[in-house]
Amino acid sequence: MINASMMNLGQQRSVIREIFEYAKKRGAEIGSENVLDFSIGNPSVPAPDSVNDTIRRLLNETDSVLLHGYTSAQGDANVRKAMADYSNKTYGITTTADDYYMTVGAAASLVITMKAIVLPEDEIITFAPFFPEYRVFAEGCGAKLVPVMSIEGTLQADTVAMEEAINEHTKAILINSPNNPSGVVLSSETLIKIADILKRKSDEYGHPIYLIADEPYRELVYDDEQVPCILNYYDNSFVCYSFSKSLSLPGERIGYILVSPKMQDNREVYAAVCGAGRVLGYVCAPALFQFVAAECIGQTADISIYKRNRDLLVNSLTEYGFDCVRPDGAFYLFMKTPEADASAFCEKAKKFELLLVPADSFGCPGYVRIAYCVQTEQIERALPAFKALAKEYGLC
Amino acid sequence: MINASMMNLGQQRSVIREIFEYAKKRGAEIGSENVLDFSIGNPSVPAPDSVNDTIRRLLNETDSVLLHGYTSAQGDANVRKAMADYSNKTYGITTTADDYYMTVGAAASLVITMKAIVLPEDEIITFAPFFPEYRVFAEGCGAKLVPVMSIEGTLQADTVAMEEAINEHTKAILINSPNNPSGVVLSSETLIKIADILKRKSDEYGHPIYLIADEPYRELVYDDEQVPCILNYYDNSFVCYSFSKSLSLPGERIGYILVSPKMQDNREVYAAVCGAGRVLGYVCAPALFQFVAAECIGQTADISIYKRNRDLLVNSLTEYGFDCVRPDGAFYLFMKTPEADASAFCEKAKKFELLLVPADSFGCPGYVRIAYCVQTEQIERALPAFKALAKEYGLC
Repeated sequence: MINASMMNLGQQRSVIREIFEYAKKRGAEIGSENVLDFSIGNPSVPAPDSVNDTIRRLLNETDSVLLHGYTSAQGDANVRKAMADYSNKTYGITTTADDYYMTVGAAASLVITMKAIVLPEDEIITFAPFFPEYRVFAEGCGAKLVPVMSIEGTLQADTVAMEEAINEHTKAILINSPNNPSGVVLSSETLIKIADILKRKSDEYGHPIYLIADEPYRELVYDDEQVPCILNYYDNSFVCYSFSKSLSLPGERIGYILVSPKMQDNREVYAAVCGAGRVLGYVCAPALFQFVAAECIGQTADISIYKRNRDLLVNSLTEYGFDCVRPDGAFYLFMKTPEADASAFCEKAKKFELLLVPADSFGCPGYVRIAYCVQTEQIERALPAFKALAKEYGLC
Repeated sequence: MINASMMNLGQQRSVIREIFEYAKKRGAEIGSENVLDFSIGNPSVPAPDSVNDTIRRLLNETDSVLLHGYTSAQGDANVRKAMADYSNKTYGITTTADDYYMTVGAAASLVITMKAIVLPEDEIITFAPFFPEYRVFAEGCGAKLVPVMSIEGTLQADTVAMEEAINEHTKAILINSPNNPSGVVLSSETLIKIADILKRKSDEYGHPIYLIADEPYRELVYDDEQVPCILNYYDNSFVCYSFSKSLSLPGERIGYILVSPKMQDNREVYAAVCGAGRVLGYVCAPALFQFVAAECIGQTADISIYKRNRDLLVNSLTEYGFDCVRPDGAFYLFMKTPEADASAFCEKAKKFELLLVPADSFGCPGYVRIAYCVQTEQIERALPAFKALAKEYGLC
């Protein structure tokens, strides 16, 4: 007599969570330093010092009732202005405080955005590989998630397949760049193609097809990579952002939704975002971390550590004969498995104490995700194990 | 083509929000100190010093990656153990960490609980006066909110009317003690009656009818008043708690759901709570404030200020001839209006710069809510205005 689908969602552990539990158990048996756990996307780099320094300063300087009190539902006005000022300066866009809605992190940003726009029978297209919770969020809002496979090799969005998948029920395209689990950054060329198709298809069906960009890894890019801002490509765009990864604050739950000022019926859509937040029980984003985000926006944790990890891992695994997609951002490496069954491959990897995530639930059988947001020493310790695994498959 | 009901919820301001906006505008005209605003339930008393002291200590002593990192979805295990230890000691109940699910405040506690148990056509009964967002939350989860009027005079729950309202669709009874907007604490006798009826009706309909206690004001009681713990009265109980009012942290969004360990199918219901949190986009409750709550549980802001405000206001308004329900807790005074139309009364009050909230949206026409979580000086300044208003109605 309770909601069985909620019970199932609560009982059914994700593959990642299963591995996490195994890692704890195995660590108790052989010492956690001997478990080579690459399963979890939890930032290993501390928040920049400015975060804790800002908290200390706010505690000393700000009246407690103001510091810890309710903000307006959409977020403190000065905080939203700081978001707008930074985005305008950085991406050459023209937004104001009233285009931003502060949220309790990226998951909240996505669920609130979907809830605001989804009607019965709506479909949301995304590109595989994709973060598995997208399905939970979309279905929870009453939409069907329609995955479209990315282009083999580059893992750029397959816009031809996307166009074929669009129909009169398509409400939105959900992109994630840099991508979890592949680390791929969607190129400017890809975004231009997506925008062209969406404009054409919106006209054809007589209603906007929205573009939703899930961008928690936006600042985690390496070398000279840049993540293009979708507002410069397509008007009916939402950016769902979180400070979890850029500031290494995943537990504090702070992010925002940016509703493009050029969106059709912008004020009505923004109101629907506010209404969705209200009905989902989001009273306001955590106040202290709203103020911290406003002060620290544009800074990042020390991502050179992730870059070092990436280079070490990609170069070594490639040398051992594995087939990797070189990630431009985020802190995940996506690797083709030398046998078709990724779960079987992960079981073999376990014999060497390597914990990897089969990508089936990411919509990509035959791949694994390797989260390299770990101590570099762990990668160094893991390399002989990866090499032995490669040998077992005759790759080297 | 967006979700129109979300848009309407975002556009339609609550009565309280309307008055809040009026107060800002009027303050700009005549000086905010001359606006006697009793509309908002925002704690005016700062958090106890231990809150900021605990934050400072955690910043100094705890590794940033642990302090600001993800906790498990249901909350950090040690934090949940602290919740259980405190509740067991204080209320003589027997709970464990696994009965608690940490949330982003009371609204999240309520929405997650409702989402976990509600099926199509379900009804949730509550007692008027009630917090208007209950309707938004219940309807958002697909349930119908069925208000039952409280007993005139005492504003205790009318259990006879409740029993009449129960039918095969009744999934839960939602109580709020101390009550917003009346400040009334439900007595032990009332809870015994509610529990007896629910046991009988659960048997009659062959499924549990849950009792949900929304208790953000639990510690805000005056004189020797105690809020009975519903787990001692009824097994199929949820407690939805928030630290917003007890620790004066409403912006930080931290609370919990307690699923009674004696609840029928307790583990399945707890799993449904976890699933509902997941589908609604709640990844975990804010980490830093989970740890703060665990350290500061049992402490309160200085509630003697609220008691002083209450006494001053109740005694004076009664002396002027108004008909008030003396509140035992929370920081609201519920007052019968001398004319039937509470909105008309509030308009007259505005002439004296008094901002009161008509209780129509709380399900009680003919009453106003007076939030006394303000500076005592504001009440002192307001008394002549209240007296003049009483004179206008010939009450004194």
